[in-house]
Amino acid sequence: MAPVKHKKRAVVLDTSLFVNPEVRESFGRTPTEAIDCFLSLAEQIPTLDFYMPPSIFEELLNFIEPEKISGDMLVVLQQKPPKKYELTCPAFLLYELIEDVRERVNKGLRVAEKAVRGVTKTGEEEIIKDLRRKYREALREGIIDSKEDVDLILLARELDALLVTADQGIIKWAEKLGVKWLIPPKFMDYLLSSIKRAKLLS
Amino acid sequence: MAPVKHKKRAVVLDTSLFVNPEVRESFGRTPTEAIDCFLSLAEQIPTLDFYMPPSIFEELLNFIEPEKISGDMLVVLQQKPPKKYELTCPAFLLYELIEDVRERVNKGLRVAEKAVRGVTKTGEEEIIKDLRRKYREALREGIIDSKEDVDLILLARELDALLVTADQGIIKWAEKLGVKWLIPPKFMDYLLSSIKRAKLLS
Repeated sequence: MAPVKHKKRAVVLDTSLFVNPEVRESFGRTPTEAIDCFLSLAEQIPTLDFYMPPSIFEELLNFIEPEKISGDMLVVLQQKPPKKYELTCPAFLLYELIEDVRERVNKGLRVAEKAVRGVTKTGEEEIIKDLRRKYREALREGIIDSKEDVDLILLARELDALLVTADQGIIKWAEKLGVKWLIPPKFMDYLLSSIKRAKLLS
Repeated sequence: MAPVKHKKRAVVLDTSLFVNPEVRESFGRTPTEAIDCFLSLAEQIPTLDFYMPPSIFEELLNFIEPEKISGDMLVVLQQKPPKKYELTCPAFLLYELIEDVRERVNKGLRVAEKAVRGVTKTGEEEIIKDLRRKYREALREGIIDSKEDVDLILLARELDALLVTADQGIIKWAEKLGVKWLIPPKFMDYLLSSIKRAKLLS
């Protein structure tokens, strides 16, 4: 009997996996260590293809010591941008995005008004600091707000990949678009189980 | 020789055509008059189908005296929502939208900071009024920022229609999506020329 052919599965990685201290815990003490650990595991899983959009890789470079990272990285973690001029998205997403932005913009104005009314009571510098924090919270949290976020979502959609991310805004969109996702604390288990299965298959 | 069959063309109308005083000028003194004038012209053009999304029609109802509008309106100006769960849009639009929102959000914060810093010089109420105007300008102008806007764009895309609108944000998106558009001041000429051609064909 001929062996069953297994189609390779794709996995798309966000930086949070390596950068966020609580998240990378099981992989290493520093981002550089976490990447090394990931590479040594990933190499044992011929059944998975790992990807990262170049824009996300750029972000990652700010946190690691590139000269300490093995050249295996280039082979094991493929850098691929999504085909942004070929992919499409359902039109209802535009409605959701625009409604969401609209609500946030209104919240932002209320935050600003509150700040102005507070100036006479508290000092100006104090108020400005507070304003910045609250404004960013109101307008950015839980929303897709960067090209890098769109890169992750679209690349995962294009490759029908599992998207590993801790970002709530990205997860919300993955849900809308039917993209598989996994939170980083589960990723070590996912890799170990994949290694086990890959061995059984070989 | 059999007569050449002419495929009907579709036209999607925004409210600005009837509501905006400078824009409706050639159609009538009031929105209700402008609609009457439009209907009497439209009826003479069997080669054109006129549409308006229901959400836009809702907006229009705030400006007209519904009891004075002829029942012809329901037949001549078809109310049709876009097929928002079937239509798709190119993914690169998401990038443009998100980059645009991001820039505007940053502008909004700068507007808010300036307002806070101005409080000690000017009165609080004065500053709040100014903040609201500038904030809205920074975050809303020239952007698609409502479900109604998306309805117009998508309906025109679905029907391959000519979109008649004065809204710069909508026109910008029509350009991106290859949707034909016309500014309302040209619409009277468009109708008169269509009447002439319809007569030649009959």
